[in-house]
Amino acid sequence: MDAHPAPGRDDAGSGGETVAAVGEFGLIRAVTADRAQPAGTVLGPGDDAAVVAAPDGRVVVTTDVLVQGVHFRLDWSTPEQVGRKAVAVNLSDIAAMGAVPTSIVVGIGCPADTKSALVTELVDGISAEAARARVGLVGGDMVRADQLVISVTALGDLGGREPVTRSGARPGDVVAVCGRLGWAAAGLAVLGRGFRSPVGVVNAHRYPEPPYAAGPAAAQAGATAMIDVSDGLLADLGHLAEESGVGIDVHTERLDVDRKLVDVGHALGADPLHWVLTGGEDHALAATFPSYTDLPAGWLRIGTVLMPGTGVTVDGEPYEHETGWEHWR
Amino acid sequence: MDAHPAPGRDDAGSGGETVAAVGEFGLIRAVTADRAQPAGTVLGPGDDAAVVAAPDGRVVVTTDVLVQGVHFRLDWSTPEQVGRKAVAVNLSDIAAMGAVPTSIVVGIGCPADTKSALVTELVDGISAEAARARVGLVGGDMVRADQLVISVTALGDLGGREPVTRSGARPGDVVAVCGRLGWAAAGLAVLGRGFRSPVGVVNAHRYPEPPYAAGPAAAQAGATAMIDVSDGLLADLGHLAEESGVGIDVHTERLDVDRKLVDVGHALGADPLHWVLTGGEDHALAATFPSYTDLPAGWLRIGTVLMPGTGVTVDGEPYEHETGWEHWR
Repeated sequence: MDAHPAPGRDDAGSGGETVAAVGEFGLIRAVTADRAQPAGTVLGPGDDAAVVAAPDGRVVVTTDVLVQGVHFRLDWSTPEQVGRKAVAVNLSDIAAMGAVPTSIVVGIGCPADTKSALVTELVDGISAEAARARVGLVGGDMVRADQLVISVTALGDLGGREPVTRSGARPGDVVAVCGRLGWAAAGLAVLGRGFRSPVGVVNAHRYPEPPYAAGPAAAQAGATAMIDVSDGLLADLGHLAEESGVGIDVHTERLDVDRKLVDVGHALGADPLHWVLTGGEDHALAATFPSYTDLPAGWLRIGTVLMPGTGVTVDGEPYEHETGWEHWR
Repeated sequence: MDAHPAPGRDDAGSGGETVAAVGEFGLIRAVTADRAQPAGTVLGPGDDAAVVAAPDGRVVVTTDVLVQGVHFRLDWSTPEQVGRKAVAVNLSDIAAMGAVPTSIVVGIGCPADTKSALVTELVDGISAEAARARVGLVGGDMVRADQLVISVTALGDLGGREPVTRSGARPGDVVAVCGRLGWAAAGLAVLGRGFRSPVGVVNAHRYPEPPYAAGPAAAQAGATAMIDVSDGLLADLGHLAEESGVGIDVHTERLDVDRKLVDVGHALGADPLHWVLTGGEDHALAATFPSYTDLPAGWLRIGTVLMPGTGVTVDGEPYEHETGWEHWR
């Protein structure tokens, strides 16, 4: 609780007007002006609510809140990177249902002495990630708070597919992942030691680059269950196994332990495989598929769904380390 | 910034386990278990995202963030009342588009030493207001923060109607309101003087009771523009007039200044009409209609839409007082 820097002081940006001077309405105008909207945005920001196309007739919705000092540090990440992360963690949840993200709304709380330039950079990052995923930033709220808080809610469209839940895995299915694992954990370890490079892993901590399109592709290919790897591979496969009532064995020889992670692990005296198995925040997707499935591009088979009773094992054995994290603990 | 009580101390509830002891996943299970879902909830809480019916093929979406010490005080309101307010302010925005609210997702941030009972009561209030409006609480996020922060995002369905924006008012339209005005401001004045009664106006400050059904009814009746009165009647009619490019005159003899407001005004030496004209947070709806319209039940004609140039006037004159408020100022 005490690890984060004092909000609204050194980390509130340098120079320029504060949000208090610009005012709520002026700031909202400044950050929403001239932001392009995709075709699915029926009515964008500026009214009591926005209107977004939901062609499927069902809408997928998720929300995540990021707090300064808990989910990010402004001495480790730029406001632009924090904005990208706040969007990415939500869009990844939409993708994990097999849906295509369509829009986001954003709530921002910050101290009155926060520089308005910081908020503008934050919203630039939010907009950049939204643009990368072709989703509209359709609304928001700005309020005063003691520390910087960003809440994002994302909507998505299923395109006629059934949602892929965590509960459909069956014994005999293959377990596959798409996206990076362990990179954000390696980056956090680097930053925690006071280093700022290698930039590849450090940036992976600053904001994830989830493979959004891989979620709908997995659904199309017949995925039986899917989850966003936010807490760590073993922890999230544990959630999936529990919801599905199955066991899962992960085959470590199939995991992609990138050379960069090996190098960082060597430099820091850490096991890169541990990062891959337990590191959260990369927002890869993990899914199960019937064994006969031709996996979609980018998906890598890494394990097998077993009968219930064994939980999640690694090469047939329990993994005897901390496997994820919870807030407040 | 310094007016609010220290978070997580006296106001964190008495007795019982803290959120840190219960843990994130335990708390999420505790607050989402056994909550009924309306028929429109295709997939409720517990997966990466929820799925909600959007029969119109478009979805209305809005988000509002409430911060302890800024939007509520736990020495003035119970957690249950704060929860009701957090939902009501959002559902009112959905109604103001002429839509029927269908579902909400909720983000909650709180200190690690917050009693889990406080969070449970907060979510009870959230659920109670959701149930009153027949919307599903379909998902959420719980995180650690220095102060209690509640972000709610609400979705709604237009039922085939066009959204009623702020920009459609035309000279000659009538201006009408539905719902209470000035009550929350009177309640805030009472609480600010250290009193706790009359309970009618005090509770109006603690949580609004917006007339949700009046929004779709106004849209059905042909409303040309509509807005949620959150900042104050004159301030919000000002937003509507600006977006529509019109003037508006409010006729004070048509405003309902309830006897309770008159009594409180007399006791506190305040003008109850000022509360009605400028008090925010009651979340009445204000709308404009063609002059020939038979107003729907509960709607009260209070003014006229004029040609542009005069802004918002009261009985033909500018209103020379502060007309609303902005955050940070």
